[in-house]
Amino acid sequence: MVMGNEVPNKLEWRINVPDGTSETLQPESGLVYRIWMGLRGLLGEFILKIWKFLEKARNIAVAEPKKVIHCLKVGVALSIVSLFYYMRPLYEGVGGNAMWAIMTVVVVFENTPGATLYKCINRAIGTFLAGSLGVGVHWVASHSGHQLEPIILGISVFVLASAATFSRFVPSVKARFDYGVVIFILTFSLVSVSGYRVDDLIDIAHQRLSTIAIGASLCILISMLFYPIWAGEELHNLIHRNLEKLADALDGCVAGYFTDSSAGDSCKKMEGYKSVLNSKAAEDSMAGFARWEPAHGRFNFRHPWKQYLKVGASLRSCAYCIETLNGCINSEIQAPEHLKRHLSDVCITLSSHASRILKELAIAVKTMRKSSKIDFSIGEMQYAVQELQNALESLPSHPFAMPSSTSGGDAKTESIRKTATPSVMEILPLATLVSMLTETAARIEEIAEEVNELARLADFKPPASKKANQSQPSNKVDETNEEGTKGLG
Amino acid sequence: MVMGNEVPNKLEWRINVPDGTSETLQPESGLVYRIWMGLRGLLGEFILKIWKFLEKARNIAVAEPKKVIHCLKVGVALSIVSLFYYMRPLYEGVGGNAMWAIMTVVVVFENTPGATLYKCINRAIGTFLAGSLGVGVHWVASHSGHQLEPIILGISVFVLASAATFSRFVPSVKARFDYGVVIFILTFSLVSVSGYRVDDLIDIAHQRLSTIAIGASLCILISMLFYPIWAGEELHNLIHRNLEKLADALDGCVAGYFTDSSAGDSCKKMEGYKSVLNSKAAEDSMAGFARWEPAHGRFNFRHPWKQYLKVGASLRSCAYCIETLNGCINSEIQAPEHLKRHLSDVCITLSSHASRILKELAIAVKTMRKSSKIDFSIGEMQYAVQELQNALESLPSHPFAMPSSTSGGDAKTESIRKTATPSVMEILPLATLVSMLTETAARIEEIAEEVNELARLADFKPPASKKANQSQPSNKVDETNEEGTKGLG
Repeated sequence: MVMGNEVPNKLEWRINVPDGTSETLQPESGLVYRIWMGLRGLLGEFILKIWKFLEKARNIAVAEPKKVIHCLKVGVALSIVSLFYYMRPLYEGVGGNAMWAIMTVVVVFENTPGATLYKCINRAIGTFLAGSLGVGVHWVASHSGHQLEPIILGISVFVLASAATFSRFVPSVKARFDYGVVIFILTFSLVSVSGYRVDDLIDIAHQRLSTIAIGASLCILISMLFYPIWAGEELHNLIHRNLEKLADALDGCVAGYFTDSSAGDSCKKMEGYKSVLNSKAAEDSMAGFARWEPAHGRFNFRHPWKQYLKVGASLRSCAYCIETLNGCINSEIQAPEHLKRHLSDVCITLSSHASRILKELAIAVKTMRKSSKIDFSIGEMQYAVQELQNALESLPSHPFAMPSSTSGGDAKTESIRKTATPSVMEILPLATLVSMLTETAARIEEIAEEVNELARLADFKPPASKKANQSQPSNKVDETNEEGTKGLG
Repeated sequence: MVMGNEVPNKLEWRINVPDGTSETLQPESGLVYRIWMGLRGLLGEFILKIWKFLEKARNIAVAEPKKVIHCLKVGVALSIVSLFYYMRPLYEGVGGNAMWAIMTVVVVFENTPGATLYKCINRAIGTFLAGSLGVGVHWVASHSGHQLEPIILGISVFVLASAATFSRFVPSVKARFDYGVVIFILTFSLVSVSGYRVDDLIDIAHQRLSTIAIGASLCILISMLFYPIWAGEELHNLIHRNLEKLADALDGCVAGYFTDSSAGDSCKKMEGYKSVLNSKAAEDSMAGFARWEPAHGRFNFRHPWKQYLKVGASLRSCAYCIETLNGCINSEIQAPEHLKRHLSDVCITLSSHASRILKELAIAVKTMRKSSKIDFSIGEMQYAVQELQNALESLPSHPFAMPSSTSGGDAKTESIRKTATPSVMEILPLATLVSMLTETAARIEEIAEEVNELARLADFKPPASKKANQSQPSNKVDETNEEGTKGLG
């Protein structure tokens, strides 16, 4: 910025920096100066980038302190194993076996004990199988003459590596033994090609296995004993958080449509369901790791993790429905206000019943305790669906004649208005809303079924019985004193 | 099965095997026999399992021969590198550097050149950075006395390992440098803890880097030169296949609703869209690897792979809509036949326009050539949406009053029907269908926009101009000779 208040003798560029200082730019300083300035600019940009990166990292750390703990655990494990081998150089430096312990820790230590165990067990099995096979092939090759030896070795490596690589494409192998197969290929190639005699090999194998065992057991111990982040528990939490997110989204969506006021607040809540849409990959991997975890907390060794995947799938199916519902009610065609008012209460009642069911299911999953009210709530929701359909059928034939009970089309007074009965296009958005809510309710029932199945398989505790078990859901809801349905009766 | 035709002297169990032989079960043969039978049963089961596994593998191989080729490539690369080091034992066996070449090949060789390059470059950068840093720390530690040395080493390993592990949680690092960070941690620990002098270390580093370079370049060459499976091309194919799947699903869904006949055939087609729902993870990883690939085939180095992700997202959003549509029209409440007939033609016209657009987009992406008709087709689709809404508005007020010329429901004889005007509940499924189709059409327009953006960014070829460019989509469709819309006009 050119400074105007102090008239300079010659043309001069000055930069005003926000902190009050100002700096004169000297045009005469030539190439070196310009390079220096360019470098300084680059450096500034670089520092800014690093600064932003650190800020992002800090946000992650604040949001999920578990991740920081995991990092510290990795640091501790690695320091221990490094120093152990540094202090006791029984083996010969990096080239020797110490390397294998360090490598094991680096490669095997994962975020969750399940993943760590999966890798350790896979590594052990893969190394053992490949080692034995490699020693066998090595023995055969070394006893079949100098000419045949490389041919046998080459062919065996080619065949086994190809076959093992292919097996990684088979889904069942991929899910459980992917890492083991990689280790198998690695170990087999190393052992069969090595120039050692079989006696030496067995000695080396013994040393190496014991080193790997030390590294692996250190990893397992540290990952399980200090602030473990169990994959199973993460999956469990993910599922009940997703249930809550759906409940919020459904509430926000319907309330937002009918009130138009709570835009800011409900929008944020509603965004939650979007993460449900894409949660499949995370659920699959967590369920895969959870299978390897020992009993911990409230989960037994054979906890039905697969059922969580089914619950997850039904949640996603419901999320698709809410996504579409959201799209439809934000579309151009809008229903006239008086029709919206007519359905407002029933819709909100239905959505609140539906989201209450989701919340109850979330609590049931969270506490691992069967819900006493769930059947009853589903009955209420079915009743609300029926009410909603009735309300739609009894849509007012004109804006003011808000009739008491029966279904539409009496239309006796109005003759001046051009739309005597609401046109189909006016009903369209509401009809869609009703259909989608009905469909959502149906999918919520599916979720409830899957959660019930989960409760059965995982032996959820019986409900805390503060009142007698209401076992007749049925349609007799209007006899009860639920204010939601009473308002409609 | 007890044989009835030859009366036995004593009670005897016989098994008839389908190939005609029969076998007498001898009850007296005791424990050994039973164990033997049990073992044989287990063995049979085991063989059956293996057989099934092989069958599954065969199916995969037949369905995707590319995977088999990849496996053979891994086998070849591994055999070459193994034999190379076996034939020229310049280094000292397995413990030495040959190991690093084999390990590099096993760990780095991936399905696509992009993934292989990603791992190679990451490995190189990670090794180099960590190596230099490790040598530095090692030098400092070894010059600071016997007491301080382990402390400095331990702290530096702890700090760097923790920080590096944490950086893997930052999304931008995770996407590009995840593997490099692992290698960084590994190399740094190995180098800094090693008991070698700095001179030795540099020597070792030189040898090791050259070995790794040989392994890595072998992998890159083999994966790029022989039947490469480019990640970018896979992503490209996935996107246009998904476009086709959505087109089929939409067609099948609407046609299935109105005709009820093509259940078997259309069901299979419709299942396709389900894979679109969960394609996010695959798309993300392929786009991540595609970034590393050099120019190949029709794709430049800076091909806009990120735009493919946006197209994929819009495809998924449309797939959610179709999923819900599918759920809604399969629900219990069904519209009466005469109303369905009234809307049948317009709905099918709209869905065929919509699916034609999807197919055109698929062809445009596939051939990387802008479509000349796409704007025109979108105009047609918008017109069809309008027609559909008109048709809904003009729903017959009673079953027989079917105006002049157009589609179905002539049925003029029956006059005793109880429903004069269709009730809202009867319209409900159709209204939903109309809304959902409208919403689907809107989302298809979004897809078209994203594909247009892709065409712009990726410099798609101009359309093959066999006729003049139709640049007025507008609503003048009825002037054209498209048979689809003419039937409605």
